[in-house]
Amino acid sequence: MSKKIEIEKKVLSENDRIAAEIRKELKKRRIVSLNLVSSPGSGKTSLLEKTLAALKNEIRMALIAGDVQTENDANRLINAGGEAVRPIVTGGACHLDARMAEKAIASINLEGIELLFIENVGNLVCPSSYDLGEDMKVALISTTEGDDKPLKYPAMFRRASVIVINKIDLLGLSDFDMAKVKKNALQINGGLKIFEISCRTGDGLNEWYNWLRSLTGRQ
Amino acid sequence: MSKKIEIEKKVLSENDRIAAEIRKELKKRRIVSLNLVSSPGSGKTSLLEKTLAALKNEIRMALIAGDVQTENDANRLINAGGEAVRPIVTGGACHLDARMAEKAIASINLEGIELLFIENVGNLVCPSSYDLGEDMKVALISTTEGDDKPLKYPAMFRRASVIVINKIDLLGLSDFDMAKVKKNALQINGGLKIFEISCRTGDGLNEWYNWLRSLTGRQ
Repeated sequence: MSKKIEIEKKVLSENDRIAAEIRKELKKRRIVSLNLVSSPGSGKTSLLEKTLAALKNEIRMALIAGDVQTENDANRLINAGGEAVRPIVTGGACHLDARMAEKAIASINLEGIELLFIENVGNLVCPSSYDLGEDMKVALISTTEGDDKPLKYPAMFRRASVIVINKIDLLGLSDFDMAKVKKNALQINGGLKIFEISCRTGDGLNEWYNWLRSLTGRQ
Repeated sequence: MSKKIEIEKKVLSENDRIAAEIRKELKKRRIVSLNLVSSPGSGKTSLLEKTLAALKNEIRMALIAGDVQTENDANRLINAGGEAVRPIVTGGACHLDARMAEKAIASINLEGIELLFIENVGNLVCPSSYDLGEDMKVALISTTEGDDKPLKYPAMFRRASVIVINKIDLLGLSDFDMAKVKKNALQINGGLKIFEISCRTGDGLNEWYNWLRSLTGRQ
């Protein structure tokens, strides 16, 4: 085993240990947590902005927004009415790890929080390897990225529980084939729950909101 | 310095050594090489398909297509008429490194080749750190990804010489502001050459082709 691989294994096992602690703490507090992963520009921040606006008077939410160099996403979420929003600037790292998540979570008053969103760095490869203690990974893809993405980035779709297909308002303006992308995704992971939405027009968002309500025991 | 950072430094310095050898070999043969980087789904493969179709009777091109798990992109390029196309399956790695590029290049008959395209793994973070011996990095962004990308992924735009803004046929269907993205990109790297194109409609592609012609001493 090369030195590099050996060290990577140690880093991942240390990550898993911290992730397990996060999971235990969140379970104890009955906080449901979702780790949002996608390519840059698929619409993670837009979806969270819409979700905050729609549900903030109903569900108490906390948000952690990871970014390589800026706090831009976290600032967008604060502007959208997020109360408990924490930026994580990874300083060049291509993914969040459990230690970063642990530190950000520790800085939030979790009393009464029901739902925790973790917005990962925009990257379809690296974040798939790092457990952050979340209940589920939610992978976004947008119709403008092409319907081949599940086949090309299988690790991410295998480890996700949910996929959100965004920008359905642009269907028909590219070669994106909705039936094909679903078939490809389900071929990799037959248990995937799939939402089809447009953050721009609002189409499909009610199903997403209802699912979040159900996660927090509301429906 | 942590053990992990120390090993990463060694890996990068070994990478730079191999990249320098590649660069020397390509220079000797007067082959111009471009390393295409972008988010997944920005249109790297589509742009190369169009370029092959338009210029294959004029310029002798070789192509290396990196992908995490499949050879899908390389197969698309072969179908588009590429002669010297080599897939690199990284086996989960989030970027190409110089050793992978060296191996792929060594398997190509470079006699008479004028232009070498390296299509990197779809990822706006990790490929920015790995020199592959190329003359220039070409970063693609698509209008549907949002105009904030240069600010959020500055390393990539700092190290690129060229940016290609794809999917201009979808301008006006999102909040993408062309003037803003250019301003943001030039703020990070004032020397960037910028193309605006649509692979779907063909708009702007002639300027791109003419630039490739000029790189190979044709205009």
